Amino acid sequence: MTLLVICQNKEPQPWVDALMKIDSRLDIRIWPDEGEPNDITFALVWQHPHGVLQRYPNLKTVSSMGAGVDHILQDPQLPSGLKLVRIIDPGLVDDMFDYLSMAVASYRHHQHRYFNYQASGRWSPDAPLKKSALTIGVMGLGQLGEVVASRFAAQNFKVVGWSTSEKNIPQVTAFVGESQQKEFFNRTNILINLLPLTDATRSILNAVNLSQLKKPAYLINVGRGQHLVEDDLRHLLESEKLSGACLDVFSEEPLSVDHWFWRHPQIKVTPHVSSLTQPDRVAPQIVQNYQQTFLGLPLLNQVDLNRGY
Amino acid sequence: MTLLVICQNKEPQPWVDALMKIDSRLDIRIWPDEGEPNDITFALVWQHPHGVLQRYPNLKTVSSMGAGVDHILQDPQLPSGLKLVRIIDPGLVDDMFDYLSMAVASYRHHQHRYFNYQASGRWSPDAPLKKSALTIGVMGLGQLGEVVASRFAAQNFKVVGWSTSEKNIPQVTAFVGESQQKEFFNRTNILINLLPLTDATRSILNAVNLSQLKKPAYLINVGRGQHLVEDDLRHLLESEKLSGACLDVFSEEPLSVDHWFWRHPQIKVTPHVSSLTQPDRVAPQIVQNYQQTFLGLPLLNQVDLNRGY
Repeated sequence: MTLLVICQNKEPQPWVDALMKIDSRLDIRIWPDEGEPNDITFALVWQHPHGVLQRYPNLKTVSSMGAGVDHILQDPQLPSGLKLVRIIDPGLVDDMFDYLSMAVASYRHHQHRYFNYQASGRWSPDAPLKKSALTIGVMGLGQLGEVVASRFAAQNFKVVGWSTSEKNIPQVTAFVGESQQKEFFNRTNILINLLPLTDATRSILNAVNLSQLKKPAYLINVGRGQHLVEDDLRHLLESEKLSGACLDVFSEEPLSVDHWFWRHPQIKVTPHVSSLTQPDRVAPQIVQNYQQTFLGLPLLNQVDLNRGY
Repeated sequence: MTLLVICQNKEPQPWVDALMKIDSRLDIRIWPDEGEPNDITFALVWQHPHGVLQRYPNLKTVSSMGAGVDHILQDPQLPSGLKLVRIIDPGLVDDMFDYLSMAVASYRHHQHRYFNYQASGRWSPDAPLKKSALTIGVMGLGQLGEVVASRFAAQNFKVVGWSTSEKNIPQVTAFVGESQQKEFFNRTNILINLLPLTDATRSILNAVNLSQLKKPAYLINVGRGQHLVEDDLRHLLESEKLSGACLDVFSEEPLSVDHWFWRHPQIKVTPHVSSLTQPDRVAPQIVQNYQQTFLGLPLLNQVDLNRGY
């Protein structure tokens, strides 16, 4: 019984260290040096090469190294019968809210504009946009989204939310399903995308939807790059339907050096840092799922394969 | 009995409008079209030309258009016997804390670095600096400083403060006077300067003091430009004793287009926007002081001329 770490674009060692700190007797291997494939019962993965999971006949559970499992579900050769779990990092909510409140404040205080002015030494003060004049719209009211919406409301922002199932969050006006989507957009100035990536949400940040935002309109994408139709964003900025965007996630990561996002004056790019899962904080739940798998007990944070999250 | 508005680098009209909204019978004039100098009993000023106040023999009270009165006290030809008042804008505390918490979050999340990387399309994610590893030091624990220190403490930052008189602020370790200054600096990572500008505080942000900060050390100056010794800042950045600075105030404003601050990669420049006094919010206290002056009653927020604030 062995735990295999398979990751690309991430260092495996901090994960191994964090797991060993919980239980030093764990048999952990790092792909591609997995030894005997029959040993592998549990895989901890991030952007694994498609097809690789088929090599392990005794694999029972695959755990994502983060909150998203889309990178796993996109594997067309994903073996059937696997249990899939994701990571709920309790510190992630704090980190995410920290990032988002900074992104909102930076927009209200014209930080990107001032930064652009710095190169030419341009002094052009503007009063910050008033909280009372802006409504924050949170798309996706799951574990993260619900807390994010509540915390913005606690900071005296007007907050609306949208999700596929009904939610009851104090001080947050929640809209449900496709029929209420237009109203949600109409009420929103600052759109925060926290949706999981599924077939239903792919390309949801498109010209039709985003042009329904209330002006001044601003987009913060911390969901997935594939939620956004990139060319639509360009047109919305050019036609001044959007005043700017803060993007932390991209269809291809790292974002290609010659992508137009980098050099657009109204786009702020950050390198997927809004929610960096910290191995130390989540190692206990990974070890627990590993043990539950062995014992045949229910798993923590198991993904509903029909919903995709 | 007439109220004269004297300002440079600020539009007078929004102030006149806000005052007239309170009392439309007010006789308000805008310098230099003040008419009969003997009429003037009250002056509302911002960066007035030195000497100009001597022209009004019946002038009794001078009100600053902001929280600072240093621009008034710097006039070597300030008539004696004047009462001096400053503005306490109740909304200013919120705006200031908003700006400061954004500045702190931007530092923790490496925003300035990511901005700089955008030009070259460089993808280089770094984990944010942890709150628990950083101590915020607030210099100046007056009306603004006390609230700022408390609010950072409420956000689970470790907070120390320094002022010339003893303060008792829950969850904030307060240091007093010159004898405890070194210890204050030694405990501080992120230094927030909120001191008033006086002879005792001028140039207080110098190489000796700033090199005592705990690493990583970062400076946020929202006090006055004259608090900072500019060449010392450059050397501290070069010698890596400071990792960066966010500057909102400058000895000369607007900051000259060819000033080196603009183009230094570790300096973030904002055009004095951390505390923009809003005429509507403070017009009532100006009108009240104008009326109290007429009636010979005590004034709101009168400045102690010995302390200078």
